[in-house]
Amino acid sequence: MGFSKVVIALGGNALQEMGTPPTAEAQLNVVRKTCECLADINFKGYEMAIVHGNGPQIGRIALSQELAAIADGELPAMPFDVCGSMSQGYIGYQIQQCLRDAIRNRGRNVPVVTILTQVVVDENDDAFKNPTKPIGPFFAEEEAKRIADEKGYVMKEDAGRGWRRHVASPIPRRITELDSIKRLWDSTIVITAGGGGIPVVENMDGSLTGVAAVIDKDLAAELLAEAMETDYLLILTEVGKIYLNYRKPDQKDLSYITVTEAVKYVKEGHFAPGSMLPKVMAAIKFARRFPGKKAIITSLDKAVDALEGHAGTVITMA
Amino acid sequence: MGFSKVVIALGGNALQEMGTPPTAEAQLNVVRKTCECLADINFKGYEMAIVHGNGPQIGRIALSQELAAIADGELPAMPFDVCGSMSQGYIGYQIQQCLRDAIRNRGRNVPVVTILTQVVVDENDDAFKNPTKPIGPFFAEEEAKRIADEKGYVMKEDAGRGWRRHVASPIPRRITELDSIKRLWDSTIVITAGGGGIPVVENMDGSLTGVAAVIDKDLAAELLAEAMETDYLLILTEVGKIYLNYRKPDQKDLSYITVTEAVKYVKEGHFAPGSMLPKVMAAIKFARRFPGKKAIITSLDKAVDALEGHAGTVITMA
Repeated sequence: MGFSKVVIALGGNALQEMGTPPTAEAQLNVVRKTCECLADINFKGYEMAIVHGNGPQIGRIALSQELAAIADGELPAMPFDVCGSMSQGYIGYQIQQCLRDAIRNRGRNVPVVTILTQVVVDENDDAFKNPTKPIGPFFAEEEAKRIADEKGYVMKEDAGRGWRRHVASPIPRRITELDSIKRLWDSTIVITAGGGGIPVVENMDGSLTGVAAVIDKDLAAELLAEAMETDYLLILTEVGKIYLNYRKPDQKDLSYITVTEAVKYVKEGHFAPGSMLPKVMAAIKFARRFPGKKAIITSLDKAVDALEGHAGTVITMA
Repeated sequence: MGFSKVVIALGGNALQEMGTPPTAEAQLNVVRKTCECLADINFKGYEMAIVHGNGPQIGRIALSQELAAIADGELPAMPFDVCGSMSQGYIGYQIQQCLRDAIRNRGRNVPVVTILTQVVVDENDDAFKNPTKPIGPFFAEEEAKRIADEKGYVMKEDAGRGWRRHVASPIPRRITELDSIKRLWDSTIVITAGGGGIPVVENMDGSLTGVAAVIDKDLAAELLAEAMETDYLLILTEVGKIYLNYRKPDQKDLSYITVTEAVKYVKEGHFAPGSMLPKVMAAIKFARRFPGKKAIITSLDKAVDALEGHAGTVITMA
């Protein structure tokens, strides 16, 4: 038998602690702790690839670009797809550096690399008709409308705090760099599809063009797990298990659920959109695609136990 | 026989045209043209890796971070090694996207990926004693001295235009991600060591720490060519050949020179520091390391001809 394969999706808490300043130094400290957990998974003999989120980071990159452009007058702000590529560079670098060290400290020498990753989305995806993801700075209404006219951005009022640019969150369709991920898989831990991937659309001639969008990183991780036919999709977040009636008196944790049960809980509205819901949806997709394989949702510190069947919420077809 | 192997070092003109605004859109147009030349090299049957510069790009990233930090008050500027990782993301993404398209347009399907690359430098490198590379914004003397005290930066007066931070340009010693580059080499065009690599030092325990430094990308390309034992080191720049007495009445171009001749011309001061000199030094190092192999300095549009022996300046051991 070969080693078990797992795609690991890292949530925002794997990169940044609530309430700490958003410096690269503070992030590096959190990433270092995260990589101890990841190195433990590797040490248990799992072959793994890592997909991370980038929400706060790409937001700050886009914001700093816009602020600098205003302050300088000549310095141009980078388009949003380029901000995504920069966030893959930033986060991938830190994970790659810390994970290598953590694995070496366990007496192993496993290459860890970040592959810049483009993920193809469908330009006819319904998400483009109604952009829902706010990014970058807040503006007054008048200024926002001027920007919308000038740059073609979709500007919307955001929860009473001012107007912001909104971008779409389309479904990931294809990982452009999959071939290289496959070639490295056996020997190497690949960090890929960071932030869900740099969103690109495929033109009529087959060429790719970056678009302003945000791809859900759990769905991108699921896409990779499907393509690699891994044994597990492991979605790491802040909680050890998923809950029904979360934070209510009758809260109940879930250890093993079937796809049918999960779908029922989704319909009953147990999972918050933009938080647990996309994780559960990605897990359902994987479990349905591969009867017999497991999607697991748990926290970083319980990841090894969960893979061994002793923690987390496991979602399977039956 | 296998295919000939070549490491290609791209100069600044491969990314940006003089006098055009430094937008990502303008850069993408230049990168697209550059990738036509690179695809021609691939089409001729060469196996290749690509190393690019990042001087203007990392400068603008660092500058925009500093300006945004000042404008916002809470948004922290990223450290310089992180700016390097972001520049690898930005530039690598554009090359990877355009080169894939250019190769597909020639009827081939060759994977092209960017690997985020750390390059180890020696913390005792003499360069750290006298940082020479100016980066980021200009400051008045008083403010510069305050920043020097506060952040420990080396601040120097820059050519009468104000005070700027200066960082070292140490010699590249080792490419951390070499193993993955080797594994991909046969099948894939790898974009690596962008900007000379993210500079890191190796600590006593073997862990890596990013440092504020700028690695010469031609020397990093040479290091990769040595490690891969490629047949060619191809350094692409603005001129078709290198010259003695450049831009003087007795200017003379060079087609074939030996290491001995090249060293003599270097000593005679024919090559400008920070411009042609580091390219010639990298070429000398490669030619000396591998008698019988060729280092070539030429322009993008003459690259194929130069590899076939009909253009450029070729430097060999004898």
